[in-house]
Amino acid sequence: MDKEWGLSLYFKAENFQKAGAFKSRGATNALLLLSDEQKAAGVITHSSGNHAGALARAAQKMGIPAYIIMPETAPKVKVNAVKTYGGKITFCKPTLEARESTLKQVQQQTGAVEIHPYNYLPTIEGQATAALEFLEQIPTLDCIITPVGGGGLLSGSALTTHAFKPHVQVLAAEPAGADDAFRSFYSGSMVPCQSPDTIADGLLTSLGSLTFPIIQHYVSDIFRVQETTIISAMQLIMERMKIVVEPSAAVTLAAVMENPDFLPGKKTGLILSGGNIDLQKLPWNK
Amino acid sequence: MDKEWGLSLYFKAENFQKAGAFKSRGATNALLLLSDEQKAAGVITHSSGNHAGALARAAQKMGIPAYIIMPETAPKVKVNAVKTYGGKITFCKPTLEARESTLKQVQQQTGAVEIHPYNYLPTIEGQATAALEFLEQIPTLDCIITPVGGGGLLSGSALTTHAFKPHVQVLAAEPAGADDAFRSFYSGSMVPCQSPDTIADGLLTSLGSLTFPIIQHYVSDIFRVQETTIISAMQLIMERMKIVVEPSAAVTLAAVMENPDFLPGKKTGLILSGGNIDLQKLPWNK
Repeated sequence: MDKEWGLSLYFKAENFQKAGAFKSRGATNALLLLSDEQKAAGVITHSSGNHAGALARAAQKMGIPAYIIMPETAPKVKVNAVKTYGGKITFCKPTLEARESTLKQVQQQTGAVEIHPYNYLPTIEGQATAALEFLEQIPTLDCIITPVGGGGLLSGSALTTHAFKPHVQVLAAEPAGADDAFRSFYSGSMVPCQSPDTIADGLLTSLGSLTFPIIQHYVSDIFRVQETTIISAMQLIMERMKIVVEPSAAVTLAAVMENPDFLPGKKTGLILSGGNIDLQKLPWNK
Repeated sequence: MDKEWGLSLYFKAENFQKAGAFKSRGATNALLLLSDEQKAAGVITHSSGNHAGALARAAQKMGIPAYIIMPETAPKVKVNAVKTYGGKITFCKPTLEARESTLKQVQQQTGAVEIHPYNYLPTIEGQATAALEFLEQIPTLDCIITPVGGGGLLSGSALTTHAFKPHVQVLAAEPAGADDAFRSFYSGSMVPCQSPDTIADGLLTSLGSLTFPIIQHYVSDIFRVQETTIISAMQLIMERMKIVVEPSAAVTLAAVMENPDFLPGKKTGLILSGGNIDLQKLPWNK
């Protein structure tokens, strides 16, 4: 595919990560940092999908109870993953308010420790290891593009890259239909994501108070991409690379496809964030 | 997945091979063995898909003209691959007779050398390198299962294994709707594949005069698998392993799923033969 856009592309295939997404990195790191007392009380989070599955899996491995608040609209394949890993699910309305109030209720009953999907330093530190490995594996990278939803992967990637390879640019890709990161980045103050409309179900959340300042400091630019390009990118990855990615992962390639002149001749690393899709509902079969 | 069937599974992911299937091995080896005079005349083959794409690609790399006879029913994605690689396509009716007579016509006009998709020793030798690598990568394998169509991959795998690891069993998997290899194997004489009915479009062909005796000598058993199991296996591979495989590749896992007691505790290697599918026509969306 490189030739088509005049640049060299490298992919960090986090769809092959445990539980099918980079989220296992943050969840595992966060659990490893808990005290024995905290572990006994269990952990809780709200998540539309991949963080939920990753946390349930990591908790099961360590014998820790995991309470997961999921919006009713979460993809079935991601709900099933949480169930498979023994997570205790409570469903709620698909709004940030409902997610947070339901979490508080369950937390009061259980005393579980909240492991936030992105606005939590141990989570961010865990996500940061994806870029760390990527920079070790491809030491000549000129830039890295990650998807941005809540900003855990992006801020972690930015911290790693700034610390170890400060000359490498970190860029982000976001659906135009959920462009709060772009608007926050350029307005200089956090704009919440309202009524997001995108098939990239992992990128519906807003930036957090921890992730936003890191992104403001260390990220070079944010690309907004169209839904049709996300679908084309996802299909291209599956057809040519023979790997399964979810729409949220494909936004990185979509950014390259829509901005071929932005990175001429650069060695560009894309973090493919995950591969959890419902094969019954591929976007081009709708 | 291992736990579900009580055995250890290893996968040789030939869907990641150049042109998306193991066929690149045989095609490349066959072309490397041609004389300069033969290279100038070009090569010709008939193939429903993966061999066609692999031959066109290898020929293009070496600057050799490639004439490809394809049945009108060949999957669009495979036809497009041949076009992308500069192969000169002639379509024919989807019968062995039509394929062979059309090939003869084009060969008379061009003088091209036929590179048979399986019944040709340089092709078989090339395909044999997949099992060779597999045995090097997982030295403790107890058995290898490959799909069987014309028998190039199976006979090559059997020759390699017999030569280097004679204690390792080689088994084959075949759709019940195209079970000529099974019937030939057990009757002791070649039974042609008539009116095959399977979604495994790479396994419609009959064994050849070269591949059949090798299979008779060195293959332990052939499993026939049901269409529903092929589809389930394909979906399971895509969902759990996050890789794209074609139905013909999934017959190997289907054989394990239908025969869980056959290989208890064994280290079982499956050759996933290819990953060229039309994403618009996934079998579970029909």
